[in-house]
Amino acid sequence: MVKVGINGYGTIGKRIADAVKLQDDMELIGATKTRPSYEARMAVEHGIPLYAAKDAEVFEAAGIKMEGTLDDLLAQVDIVVDCTPGGVGAQYRDVYKGAGVKAIFQGGEDHVTAGISFNAMANYRDAYGADLVRVVSCNTTGLIRTLYPLTQAFGVDNVFASLIRRSVDPPASKGSGVNFIEPSLKLPTHHGPDVKTVLSDISIQTMAVKVPTTLMHVHCINVKLSRPATKDEVLEVWSRTPRVRFVRGGDGVRSSAQIMDMARDLGTRRGDMMDIVVWEDGVSVIDRNLYYYQAIHQESDVVPEIVDCIRSMCKLQDGAASSMAKTNATLGLKG
Amino acid sequence: MVKVGINGYGTIGKRIADAVKLQDDMELIGATKTRPSYEARMAVEHGIPLYAAKDAEVFEAAGIKMEGTLDDLLAQVDIVVDCTPGGVGAQYRDVYKGAGVKAIFQGGEDHVTAGISFNAMANYRDAYGADLVRVVSCNTTGLIRTLYPLTQAFGVDNVFASLIRRSVDPPASKGSGVNFIEPSLKLPTHHGPDVKTVLSDISIQTMAVKVPTTLMHVHCINVKLSRPATKDEVLEVWSRTPRVRFVRGGDGVRSSAQIMDMARDLGTRRGDMMDIVVWEDGVSVIDRNLYYYQAIHQESDVVPEIVDCIRSMCKLQDGAASSMAKTNATLGLKG
Amino acid sequence: MVKVGINGYGTIGKRIADAVKLQDDMELIGATKTRPSYEARMAVEHGIPLYAAKDAEVFEAAGIKMEGTLDDLLAQVDIVVDCTPGGVGAQYRDVYKGAGVKAIFQGGEDHVTAGISFNAMANYRDAYGADLVRVVSCNTTGLIRTLYPLTQAFGVDNVFASLIRRSVDPPASKGSGVNFIEPSLKLPTHHGPDVKTVLSDISIQTMAVKVPTTLMHVHCINVKLSRPATKDEVLEVWSRTPRVRFVRGGDGVRSSAQIMDMARDLGTRRGDMMDIVVWEDGVSVIDRNLYYYQAIHQESDVVPEIVDCIRSMCKLQDGAASSMAKTNATLGLKG
Amino acid sequence: MVKVGINGYGTIGKRIADAVKLQDDMELIGATKTRPSYEARMAVEHGIPLYAAKDAEVFEAAGIKMEGTLDDLLAQVDIVVDCTPGGVGAQYRDVYKGAGVKAIFQGGEDHVTAGISFNAMANYRDAYGADLVRVVSCNTTGLIRTLYPLTQAFGVDNVFASLIRRSVDPPASKGSGVNFIEPSLKLPTHHGPDVKTVLSDISIQTMAVKVPTTLMHVHCINVKLSRPATKDEVLEVWSRTPRVRFVRGGDGVRSSAQIMDMARDLGTRRGDMMDIVVWEDGVSVIDRNLYYYQAIHQESDVVPEIVDCIRSMCKLQDGAASSMAKTNATLGLKG
Repeated sequence: MVKVGINGYGTIGKRIADAVKLQDDMELIGATKTRPSYEARMAVEHGIPLYAAKDAEVFEAAGIKMEGTLDDLLAQVDIVVDCTPGGVGAQYRDVYKGAGVKAIFQGGEDHVTAGISFNAMANYRDAYGADLVRVVSCNTTGLIRTLYPLTQAFGVDNVFASLIRRSVDPPASKGSGVNFIEPSLKLPTHHGPDVKTVLSDISIQTMAVKVPTTLMHVHCINVKLSRPATKDEVLEVWSRTPRVRFVRGGDGVRSSAQIMDMARDLGTRRGDMMDIVVWEDGVSVIDRNLYYYQAIHQESDVVPEIVDCIRSMCKLQDGAASSMAKTNATLGLKG
Repeated sequence: MVKVGINGYGTIGKRIADAVKLQDDMELIGATKTRPSYEARMAVEHGIPLYAAKDAEVFEAAGIKMEGTLDDLLAQVDIVVDCTPGGVGAQYRDVYKGAGVKAIFQGGEDHVTAGISFNAMANYRDAYGADLVRVVSCNTTGLIRTLYPLTQAFGVDNVFASLIRRSVDPPASKGSGVNFIEPSLKLPTHHGPDVKTVLSDISIQTMAVKVPTTLMHVHCINVKLSRPATKDEVLEVWSRTPRVRFVRGGDGVRSSAQIMDMARDLGTRRGDMMDIVVWEDGVSVIDRNLYYYQAIHQESDVVPEIVDCIRSMCKLQDGAASSMAKTNATLGLKG
Repeated sequence: MVKVGINGYGTIGKRIADAVKLQDDMELIGATKTRPSYEARMAVEHGIPLYAAKDAEVFEAAGIKMEGTLDDLLAQVDIVVDCTPGGVGAQYRDVYKGAGVKAIFQGGEDHVTAGISFNAMANYRDAYGADLVRVVSCNTTGLIRTLYPLTQAFGVDNVFASLIRRSVDPPASKGSGVNFIEPSLKLPTHHGPDVKTVLSDISIQTMAVKVPTTLMHVHCINVKLSRPATKDEVLEVWSRTPRVRFVRGGDGVRSSAQIMDMARDLGTRRGDMMDIVVWEDGVSVIDRNLYYYQAIHQESDVVPEIVDCIRSMCKLQDGAASSMAKTNATLGLKG
Repeated sequence: MVKVGINGYGTIGKRIADAVKLQDDMELIGATKTRPSYEARMAVEHGIPLYAAKDAEVFEAAGIKMEGTLDDLLAQVDIVVDCTPGGVGAQYRDVYKGAGVKAIFQGGEDHVTAGISFNAMANYRDAYGADLVRVVSCNTTGLIRTLYPLTQAFGVDNVFASLIRRSVDPPASKGSGVNFIEPSLKLPTHHGPDVKTVLSDISIQTMAVKVPTTLMHVHCINVKLSRPATKDEVLEVWSRTPRVRFVRGGDGVRSSAQIMDMARDLGTRRGDMMDIVVWEDGVSVIDRNLYYYQAIHQESDVVPEIVDCIRSMCKLQDGAASSMAKTNATLGLKG
């Protein structure tokens, strides 16, 4: 049983906590929190041991029982999943190393923070036994999930993707406007280079805009395949790809809103959709040009990748297939 | 075991189906659907027997297996929960009577359709053994949940409430604008008179606006109590009231967005919040004037009321207390 | 010709600048800006002399020509309109006094900053010849515009208003969530007491929520009149009230979105709607209880009040009627 | 003086009416309306003669004075601008022909309805003296405005564009969801072929999503130029292109929200932005690949094209340059 700690019990952290508790080869030791809040109270109610990331007294004042500090947590774990806000994780790098604990960073950190960037299907073995690994961001994970199998099946000469990004996560009261479309003016956006931290040989350019929605990101993707393929061949490849799921506009799934409603019907915890969702009736192939739309649930799609990353770093499973199978079964993902 | 059917497997219908399946004194026979869709496919995947409300062939064409027609369903059940769109239920009234089946209507129908309007806490016994009962709408249910205990504890001379309504439910692609506030110009709005179908003696006036959000309705309520009370006395009353839950802005629950995020943390199915949510630190009492804000999850708050209504109509429990206790325990509501 | 300066060329400041330029008894000397931006460039293009509120060099670097500093501006004017962000104005109070310049503050400052709070119709003479005056906020201005004539015509025993507030102004990229309703938990909200800084004898309580829209605030108002009145009598009073305008849902003006579209059709500069807008077919009177909805264009409704305030403080017109008539004619308001 | 009629006084129709009134070689005879509404009342207030598209009595009942019927209008004009809803225009084609009146259709009609599709800069002479012409849609107009000069300056091998579309126009109360991203699943979307109705030789593919905003469409565009170019060369070409305007994120114009605020500052009628807006600091050229973002004000960008189209069809100006210069000067566009 690998002992796991989580530094930062927020949007990603709380999902990792729940996912780890479902694995039979891992034990959740606890998670840190910086400030008392409803999220902290829910954690305590659900039996997640909480540790104070900084000041423990504010929790006492709020009547929330803490098990200790970050140092106390690090002293008990084999591996810590850093779920602090983007850019903050790098500051903890030496703390984790000093404590002799393996660490996983999020996509909000630079590749150099860990030196290895991870996606279970694409490069599970690169993280095998490693001490520091970064799991790429939600958008990058989404791109790799559908592009990697295309590189294997047909070869990929070039990718151009436009990312339509949600502006804030669902619980946010701030950080967004209301009525706008905002482009990412620094071109190319960081998403293309980020894909290359995992798929080093791919040629990819990206543009991105932010829009006033909370639910999911949507990608418009144009792939130049290395050899001609039919739409059916492409669909067949993805139908065999874990964590890639089809929906159909013809079934009434016209937008990200219906996808997330469907996820609620599926009965996943929090109504999460950890699979990448491709509109089956929105795929088009003309000669070697493939066009498709995919939707990414930014709150949760990296969760199974992090679970697999723990397995790889702690040598719990030799290869991606067996680790992903365990993760998919416990989290209800498409296998 | 009371046999239950559902006519209309949509936003409310699917939640009733799941709730009924959790009761040990009820059996879900099936639910009807008018058109194939992702909701129909999810139902089949989750073992909900589906019946065609109208044309069965469109389901066959879509590859969705149906168990029969509405008539087939009605032939097997003791009671049907009508979850058809507002105003449609009344058209089925005679169909249900003809089939010799008890029927529950939603708040979208007029009071006269059933002759009895229902809220578990306020008038459980009015529905006892009845053949036709209407469970009041989400907003009316919310108003009764917090007002009824005030009438019992302090007396209520008058209520004035402004209802800030969500414009569409989360999965909707249509039916709303994007950037607007739209008042209900027909005054008084129907909500006040609708409360009086259950609490006949109360004096209440309401105004309402629609705003571009999907998550919850929020009410601004001013109650003139019959006798002076303190804020603590009011809070104490609600703390003892089932299906009324406190949140605190001081805990970071500033808006409906954080409430629904908290509901996801609670782990309820679909992330629903069936309790009415009162901001504890937004309650104010000045002399006999009580001011408070409450939030209503329009997709789910009537679900436990409908479960209790089935028990009352089918004489499964003599009184509200025992029925509500069973319902609350199975659905994870505040008791 | 009264020489006018503006400290802060933002949402309100730029509208004051344009309004002052239309008056034949005022001269716009210039406006300050803190940072170069498109607003600064537009100002220069439109011949508004700009002065640096702080650092002049950043404007030079951006190629925007400045006429001097705030001190230079103050040295040339008789009166300054403080349009700095809420709470910042108070810090400038002594600067203005030191420069021997009269000053108008916005509703974002406390009443005590100026000692006199102003609405043209209600208390024009209170500001006559004064050195420091505060024009109340957009919401308070809206409440006074419709309530004051009611106090004169019928008497008002009590007012209860729920304010549904826009979350951010139209150009904002930040500061809002996307999908939420957020109550103002500190009760009573400041709006009621703020009305009393002008209408000292009125009894008024207010609650407020913030919603994801940019266009206008909407108020749900319940007034207990001192004597019975008919709906027609109330409408007749408002029809004679300057800066209060009717719209009708029956004409397709169902929401704030259509009001602002109508304002664009009217051809006002920036599509502003400086009148308070009451839904004529949303007014209801039952006994002595009056219910109505009104919409407030938060970006502009205080502009004519500020113009009149300049006249009162600089003794340009003896009374409200003649000043308001000039202002209304130049700005295209309802007289 | 060419006599102009407008069939359909809505979003586009009312802007055409105002634009025509500003031209010294055209006379606005009147516009039709189907139903009384605030738009009809505003038209009458602004001296636009109204004609009943169908039933005149509903206007009488609403107290709105009409000048006659559509037939009466057609009898007086040389040319009619069809501004009826998409797909409706084709039904009027024979009515216009029967009345012996030239007609301009909108982009909502198919190319075959008129046989000629129009953009002033690209093919002014194709419409010269013609009886039926279609002005392409807002998005297509936007694409042609920036692509056509690239074809002339550098040659264009291929274009791939992702269109992020506003879901509804600002005054809409319906027709949209609130929290969603909705892809256009039918690929390729119609926008690419539509560009080819004007630029027949161009190779272009498009994808599109709809998002919950009202203000503008935004395009993410990738152009493969025929020969290498620098960013400065591309900017220089557009700086000489009429109706293409730069904004800068560095000036605080981060999103479509600030563009439309800037348009209000410019003082255009209704705050319209008829120029296509390119983010100057969001343009990137890598080898022969050009990437840029542009924003399209869907309510107004076709207005100057329609004015020029009238001139071409009625032979008022021989070439695009002189017609566009007149139009740009009267409407305040970038020349």
